Amino acid sequence: MRNIGIGLVGGGYMGKAHAAALSAVGAVFDTPLRPRLEMICATSTDSAERYRRAYGFARATEDWRVLVAAPEVEAVVIASPQDTHRAIAELAFSLGKPVFCEKPLGAGLADAEAMVAAAEASGCANMVGFNYIRTPASQFARALIARGDLGQISWFRGEHTEDFDADPAKPASWRSFGAANGAMGDLAPHMINAALALMGPIAKLSTDIVTVYNSRPGADGPVSVTNDDIGQFMCRFQNGAMGHLSFSRVATGRKMGYAYEVTGSKAAIRFDQEDQNALWLYKAEGPEAERGFRKILIGPEHPDYLAFCQGPGHGTGYQDQILIEARDFLRAIETGQPVWPTFRDGLEVSRVIAAAHASHASGAWVAL
Amino acid sequence: MRNIGIGLVGGGYMGKAHAAALSAVGAVFDTPLRPRLEMICATSTDSAERYRRAYGFARATEDWRVLVAAPEVEAVVIASPQDTHRAIAELAFSLGKPVFCEKPLGAGLADAEAMVAAAEASGCANMVGFNYIRTPASQFARALIARGDLGQISWFRGEHTEDFDADPAKPASWRSFGAANGAMGDLAPHMINAALALMGPIAKLSTDIVTVYNSRPGADGPVSVTNDDIGQFMCRFQNGAMGHLSFSRVATGRKMGYAYEVTGSKAAIRFDQEDQNALWLYKAEGPEAERGFRKILIGPEHPDYLAFCQGPGHGTGYQDQILIEARDFLRAIETGQPVWPTFRDGLEVSRVIAAAHASHASGAWVAL
Amino acid sequence: MRNIGIGLVGGGYMGKAHAAALSAVGAVFDTPLRPRLEMICATSTDSAERYRRAYGFARATEDWRVLVAAPEVEAVVIASPQDTHRAIAELAFSLGKPVFCEKPLGAGLADAEAMVAAAEASGCANMVGFNYIRTPASQFARALIARGDLGQISWFRGEHTEDFDADPAKPASWRSFGAANGAMGDLAPHMINAALALMGPIAKLSTDIVTVYNSRPGADGPVSVTNDDIGQFMCRFQNGAMGHLSFSRVATGRKMGYAYEVTGSKAAIRFDQEDQNALWLYKAEGPEAERGFRKILIGPEHPDYLAFCQGPGHGTGYQDQILIEARDFLRAIETGQPVWPTFRDGLEVSRVIAAAHASHASGAWVAL
Amino acid sequence: MRNIGIGLVGGGYMGKAHAAALSAVGAVFDTPLRPRLEMICATSTDSAERYRRAYGFARATEDWRVLVAAPEVEAVVIASPQDTHRAIAELAFSLGKPVFCEKPLGAGLADAEAMVAAAEASGCANMVGFNYIRTPASQFARALIARGDLGQISWFRGEHTEDFDADPAKPASWRSFGAANGAMGDLAPHMINAALALMGPIAKLSTDIVTVYNSRPGADGPVSVTNDDIGQFMCRFQNGAMGHLSFSRVATGRKMGYAYEVTGSKAAIRFDQEDQNALWLYKAEGPEAERGFRKILIGPEHPDYLAFCQGPGHGTGYQDQILIEARDFLRAIETGQPVWPTFRDGLEVSRVIAAAHASHASGAWVAL
Repeated sequence: MRNIGIGLVGGGYMGKAHAAALSAVGAVFDTPLRPRLEMICATSTDSAERYRRAYGFARATEDWRVLVAAPEVEAVVIASPQDTHRAIAELAFSLGKPVFCEKPLGAGLADAEAMVAAAEASGCANMVGFNYIRTPASQFARALIARGDLGQISWFRGEHTEDFDADPAKPASWRSFGAANGAMGDLAPHMINAALALMGPIAKLSTDIVTVYNSRPGADGPVSVTNDDIGQFMCRFQNGAMGHLSFSRVATGRKMGYAYEVTGSKAAIRFDQEDQNALWLYKAEGPEAERGFRKILIGPEHPDYLAFCQGPGHGTGYQDQILIEARDFLRAIETGQPVWPTFRDGLEVSRVIAAAHASHASGAWVAL
Repeated sequence: MRNIGIGLVGGGYMGKAHAAALSAVGAVFDTPLRPRLEMICATSTDSAERYRRAYGFARATEDWRVLVAAPEVEAVVIASPQDTHRAIAELAFSLGKPVFCEKPLGAGLADAEAMVAAAEASGCANMVGFNYIRTPASQFARALIARGDLGQISWFRGEHTEDFDADPAKPASWRSFGAANGAMGDLAPHMINAALALMGPIAKLSTDIVTVYNSRPGADGPVSVTNDDIGQFMCRFQNGAMGHLSFSRVATGRKMGYAYEVTGSKAAIRFDQEDQNALWLYKAEGPEAERGFRKILIGPEHPDYLAFCQGPGHGTGYQDQILIEARDFLRAIETGQPVWPTFRDGLEVSRVIAAAHASHASGAWVAL
Repeated sequence: MRNIGIGLVGGGYMGKAHAAALSAVGAVFDTPLRPRLEMICATSTDSAERYRRAYGFARATEDWRVLVAAPEVEAVVIASPQDTHRAIAELAFSLGKPVFCEKPLGAGLADAEAMVAAAEASGCANMVGFNYIRTPASQFARALIARGDLGQISWFRGEHTEDFDADPAKPASWRSFGAANGAMGDLAPHMINAALALMGPIAKLSTDIVTVYNSRPGADGPVSVTNDDIGQFMCRFQNGAMGHLSFSRVATGRKMGYAYEVTGSKAAIRFDQEDQNALWLYKAEGPEAERGFRKILIGPEHPDYLAFCQGPGHGTGYQDQILIEARDFLRAIETGQPVWPTFRDGLEVSRVIAAAHASHASGAWVAL
Repeated sequence: MRNIGIGLVGGGYMGKAHAAALSAVGAVFDTPLRPRLEMICATSTDSAERYRRAYGFARATEDWRVLVAAPEVEAVVIASPQDTHRAIAELAFSLGKPVFCEKPLGAGLADAEAMVAAAEASGCANMVGFNYIRTPASQFARALIARGDLGQISWFRGEHTEDFDADPAKPASWRSFGAANGAMGDLAPHMINAALALMGPIAKLSTDIVTVYNSRPGADGPVSVTNDDIGQFMCRFQNGAMGHLSFSRVATGRKMGYAYEVTGSKAAIRFDQEDQNALWLYKAEGPEAERGFRKILIGPEHPDYLAFCQGPGHGTGYQDQILIEARDFLRAIETGQPVWPTFRDGLEVSRVIAAAHASHASGAWVAL
């Protein structure tokens, strides 16, 4: 059993999730390649040391260049802010080290393109962290579609809606500024990725974007919000189906409204991340009187389920998605084969976002 | 207690619903004005006579002109095909007789405009049959919004989705031809009416429309379908909120997907006609740990409920919506005051549909 | 088309429901036999006259004997308090007039037995008003079980729970006194009827009954409550299955918790009257990965649905159940054949309630 | 930061869950005490060695006595069959080593009593593995009840239903023999524990137990099943509330039907482990028209949620429950204070089960 030294950039929000996943991934999946927690990087010496102790890394640093360059760090996991992704990844690839990068791929389309170029030039394993699509339920949805069970697909609707900014009295924060932190920049990537994974490429789209609360309280009085609260677009997929995607950070009552429906001539599916252990399936077969959307509870028959759960009905959670990512990243490194979703898959998402912004600016449909 | 002679044009689909409602409306609502079932018109002498006996009308005819002109017919209910609406209504109004007309108002925008002109010139009571919005749940949704409980409203999403044409092997029928019978012509009116009722006027929209199954089996081989299976539009309401509406007759698994969600700064609501006795409400108040969408079961505290139900949880159904329409039509006649939705309200719906077709043709946003 | 003169005893709660149903039943079902609303009886001359006008009866009386004896009254519908059922029914049967009686059959087992004896001696049509089991969903559940789709049935759980007395500060009322008005007397009959209809006879049971709030506010201070708030029993059915039934009037949050689940070796069903247009069905067939409880929306394929609804998803409500009862009562009269549920079916329910009280008194299982 | 050597007995079903939890518990909870994975025991040298490699333990053995006695093993986790629990625990306690034991506590009441005696005599930390009650939702339910939010509680209903033996054609297995492996022995403990945790002690109960499928296919023809498929009991809690609990392994369609409802005068709650990230709460306050069961999605405001989830809606799963157990076991060891549920809590569950069997045998109520 081989092992590999991991460097983790970012100890907060996503960093902890990855640290916990790297600690347990071997026991859960019996992976041939096992991670060693070599170094963690955070924004100050103090916080880095605190994370090191909490998560069990060997060393800590406040300089990501030190981490990436360290010989015992053989692969890098990036869980730091979007505008740092590109430089970290480029350095790692230049040193021949595999990279797992949280979504989205950098702070915009240019970053994403550069990161894909660097990754592909290096030949190193590269993955991007679209974790929600990893649930057994969504993996099963992909499988149902892939094997043709839905028949001719005519409709896709997806949303990613949350309510963290639904209260207009909430003060401005870093989330209030910059396209990358708006609904289209921050929430859209996960659901666009889902749409592409389930439906294939988008052919064209028409977009609308709005800032609902233009001003928020700041330390010294009202502050102007410079990015969007809600975005939506209509689209046509290359497979001919019609689609609609929407994204909102002001969706009162929604906590993880990562939800989609796919309608085909033979069947339809519905999914909502707020009830991530169920997939709803309607099959247009059998007696009419017995047809209905069935709530399939994810279990041993579904992808990856048994890694976390001992029996039916046990249920998976958020951390299990991160564990699957860790396993797949290790697998990509070990086998030398790309494992979905690669940086290139992340770039496709960024391209859709760029097209959506262009459509909103022009008021017209934009082809991809 | 006065009574009034009713003439009903159309004995099939909707005619029976109105006949049953007219029979029971007095007992249910103790209306000051009571209907007498004077005459029914159907497409043949035989069917008209059969309907007459079944529904309990005094006389039958196969000529709607006879019905409208009969002295004992004092008010007319139109439940015949769209392209007959205008002529019947115009004759009735010219004779000073009130008219209740099933939705949509005629076969297109020109019909709707002429019918409103005739109605308003006559001064007669006039109503259009948007029945779904009459459920206690939707009436309560309107009341919640009207009294400001949702705060600043930022988002509306509505759909009317069914699956009666979801099977591509289903033969062509009258539904397969003519814009008025497509998804935008036949399904959209109810949900556009709901959007206008809940949100107020639409300022602009951008539309996409598609025919999924271009050909269907006919008696002598494949037949080309000339109208749309799915339509959708993004919009902005005059109140500033963003919206999305979609309509489909190929939505596998959906039987009465008349569903909407409205999101405001203080609360959000969700409704689905398939579970018409519940309204889901989320209020952004009280301890965070206790917040959630609550399933409000419609009961004695909600509009019109007690007319049909003796106690909480009894539940209303489709026929109860038609009963409310019958009561309101009688009320409009008796009081001489317009009762929502009037022909003018129906015209607003037709205008939105016309704008949607224009937007689809141009690929651009269209202002209303 | 023949018609028949109806006398209705009771104009309040249930009386109005029956009056409305009698008004519309002909139009809805095109019944061969049509009701004439001849006479209504209420507790005072004033109220009787008020009901007469509202519901459209020809005459009014405050004396049920006058009503039952009137020659133009050819059949009697009893919607008056339980303790009046027996005398009214006995007089009607003695005059050879069919009787529809609201549940339960009289104020106790002795009444029920006497009423069955009188009914059967007379040979007249007789029915008892268990309306909830008439929904298309529950009728379909019965059909699924009857045709063996569930395989060997091992388990039944039913409840009838409401919350009208859940607030301990609610003043005492007529509901607070007398076994017939407690949870076991007033709520149990509907669900016991459902259990018998779905599962067949009960072989034995063991019961527990409790008064949660022993005292309630009265006009002159606290009043002792003399009947039960909650009852439950475990049972074995003659078919070998195990069962559990519970009844509560203090079930906070429950408005019409008339709900049951039936589990067999091949399938299971679930139903809740609060969502009366759906039946949940799980079939242990097909790929494991695609199994789940499916929410079957009641539609044209299900019993009696098309009488009230023009298409899928329209939905039925409380009043539709009463319409089915009216149709069946007319059918029983017209054909001379018993139509379920007859007085004898009502007696079986009363026998179960009596056994339940005996079990609670002895603390032991009681055989039926 | 101190650490402690762990010995794990059992590498299969539950062993893996504990191994993974022990690997990640430090990173997830930043525990002061950190586990070292010292030794694992399985039934053969080969399997033990395989588990050792997979889970990352230092050593392996096929003799639990070797494991318990090893000096570097400072605490023992028991995840082996029920009939091994007692001997392992007694040896560990005799050596002054803390023990975490999977539920139930041994193979019957005598084992449980002996294990409590040994634990309490030793003064060592001891816990029993009732994991389901550890979800944030159920912890929140406990908190709501504990702080009196439900008012006077009148009713508890709980079930633990699964369908792993629902198919009568499934061959006999170890599950088919011995009371400890029947529904009352194997499924009841979790839900009885929940009932005691939420409601407090049971005062008396009346039980029914049944074997639905008395014979199952074996290698050499039909085999007699010697234990129960379904059990249920009615009970009264010491707090005066009425209760009902049921357990089934033949509940077609149910995968993890660990579900309960608690009804009080002010509020009611509902929970189902199949949707473990939601708690349904109805509060009898505010306008009647706005009341309803609300679906509270578990989030940062609820107990233990933020350990696994970075934000609202992320959701927890089965493995997270085991992580909480690991944290609490470490805490009990570190602080020297008992942490619920101790062996004594497990014994209370065993006593209820024994009383239930006694009630079934006598057909009478049994006091505890």
